[in-house]
Amino acid sequence: MQNRITELFNIKYPIIQAGMVWCSGWELASAVSNAGGLGIIGAGSMYPNILEEHLQKCNAATEKPYAVNLPLLYPDIEAHLELIEKYNVPIVFTSAGNPKKWTSWLKERNKTVVHVVSSARFAMKAQDAGVDAVVAEGFEAGGHNGRDETTTLCLLPIVKSVIDIPLIAAGGIGSGAAIYACFALGAEGVQIGSRFVASEESSAHINFKNAVVDAKEGDTMLSMKQVIAVRLLKNKFYDEIKALEETGDVDGMVRHLGRGRAKKGMFEGDMDEGELEIGQISGAINEIKPAAEILEQLIREFNLTKQCLGKMEDF
Amino acid sequence: MQNRITELFNIKYPIIQAGMVWCSGWELASAVSNAGGLGIIGAGSMYPNILEEHLQKCNAATEKPYAVNLPLLYPDIEAHLELIEKYNVPIVFTSAGNPKKWTSWLKERNKTVVHVVSSARFAMKAQDAGVDAVVAEGFEAGGHNGRDETTTLCLLPIVKSVIDIPLIAAGGIGSGAAIYACFALGAEGVQIGSRFVASEESSAHINFKNAVVDAKEGDTMLSMKQVIAVRLLKNKFYDEIKALEETGDVDGMVRHLGRGRAKKGMFEGDMDEGELEIGQISGAINEIKPAAEILEQLIREFNLTKQCLGKMEDF
Repeated sequence: MQNRITELFNIKYPIIQAGMVWCSGWELASAVSNAGGLGIIGAGSMYPNILEEHLQKCNAATEKPYAVNLPLLYPDIEAHLELIEKYNVPIVFTSAGNPKKWTSWLKERNKTVVHVVSSARFAMKAQDAGVDAVVAEGFEAGGHNGRDETTTLCLLPIVKSVIDIPLIAAGGIGSGAAIYACFALGAEGVQIGSRFVASEESSAHINFKNAVVDAKEGDTMLSMKQVIAVRLLKNKFYDEIKALEETGDVDGMVRHLGRGRAKKGMFEGDMDEGELEIGQISGAINEIKPAAEILEQLIREFNLTKQCLGKMEDF
Repeated sequence: MQNRITELFNIKYPIIQAGMVWCSGWELASAVSNAGGLGIIGAGSMYPNILEEHLQKCNAATEKPYAVNLPLLYPDIEAHLELIEKYNVPIVFTSAGNPKKWTSWLKERNKTVVHVVSSARFAMKAQDAGVDAVVAEGFEAGGHNGRDETTTLCLLPIVKSVIDIPLIAAGGIGSGAAIYACFALGAEGVQIGSRFVASEESSAHINFKNAVVDAKEGDTMLSMKQVIAVRLLKNKFYDEIKALEETGDVDGMVRHLGRGRAKKGMFEGDMDEGELEIGQISGAINEIKPAAEILEQLIREFNLTKQCLGKMEDF
């Protein structure tokens, strides 16, 4: 099976592992790329020297294409861009910022550029900026979220209707059936985060991986909308932030968030004091597995869903 | 095409028009049922004498099965139940309350009973109460919404995994492609609200229908979570409620909501002072059409999506 996404990235399966702070280093990215998907190193939580180490190791671990995710608001972005050039990273996913700023710089260097959006308006802006594809990420996704709260089911057809470049779906996708559903809505690829947090190769702390496996439906909530909207797994820190949110105490939220909360939770495993970013679909994730097995399962489920629905009669 | 939903309701297409306050009276319900779907009269905004009039007219307008939606917290519910018996309504959709209370009463009278839920926990409770099917309604839906904010894409597979009775998807469904996507996720039927608000037969005020057609992605928001979570089209009333919400003024919200806001907006057409309940998918609705044409278009799109995806090679 080939489509515009497998051709754009030169990969076997149109399944992309999301770049995620503290969870997706070289080990996860190379495992996914070696298994036929597209692995992404999440540079948002890395100082330049750390990113350099991950790029060296990823280049040694795979000959397949992989990508780096760059939040465009990252303060040290120029250092990151230099490293992407130095280590010949072929694909860059940008997010959280204006795609106009760096897209042409990257395109001049023959990089494939994808921008992550959460609304139709920004999808059009990204296309105008010259990116090769967009990721449309719904409200159910973990991590940083859009203001409009549009869900993947509603976002995909609306974004599809305003762009010509290929559409990658993100948010709420943890099974092959969900990939198939996104293809029905016009996507040609999917970006999957939460499912890969609970992989053996993810750099998430084992406590966080176990918490993702234990999570049930209803255990995450979009939080801190007035500061920086982010979907969190409910814990002590979430409860404290929620209490501040309900009284409209924005300054209190900023103070309480402070610095290093995400690292403390996701990387160091403090399940009470840490900020735990994860998607709603964590409620359907029940096992930590090697990334290659996750990919195999997604593909098996996709083909099975296709087969079952193919047997259905027309309306 | 037959499945457990078409057989349960004795209908041609597993497409159900949602019962909606102020929008779905006998005209819309009978039009949908006559076209091969299942029409629902939304009793939540009707006094018993009004409901009786709608039942008389619906019985005269169609010989096909139709249903009544009963919010279980409705104060006059016993009068409504008597009317359902008197006028031989074959199917009852219950929502917003405990399904234990009336399900056995309805089953003893040979009614088909469906309960609307927004979480896996309540889906199990509904099944235990003896209902024949559940509607799982995601965060993107208009009207009253669950506390967990789980989206349709995440909710369907999780609910599917905990029930044996048939699953009907709701929230974010405005096209045949979306119906197909929901079937991929395990649904055997869909309940569609917003799309039918913008139908010729809907009892919504023309101003509201036009506002739904004009709505863009990002124009609705889940609101009043601390009072009664409801998805609203953004207008002057929404802005005022939002300002109160941000300061945590729950009493102020209750006072400002007052009584009759929904009728004022959706039925009387006051686009500034009225409460306008609609789903996120309104951003993809661009035309007011007869209900039968909407149904035909959904079926055409469903078959087309099935055909396109069927041609795709396996992974």
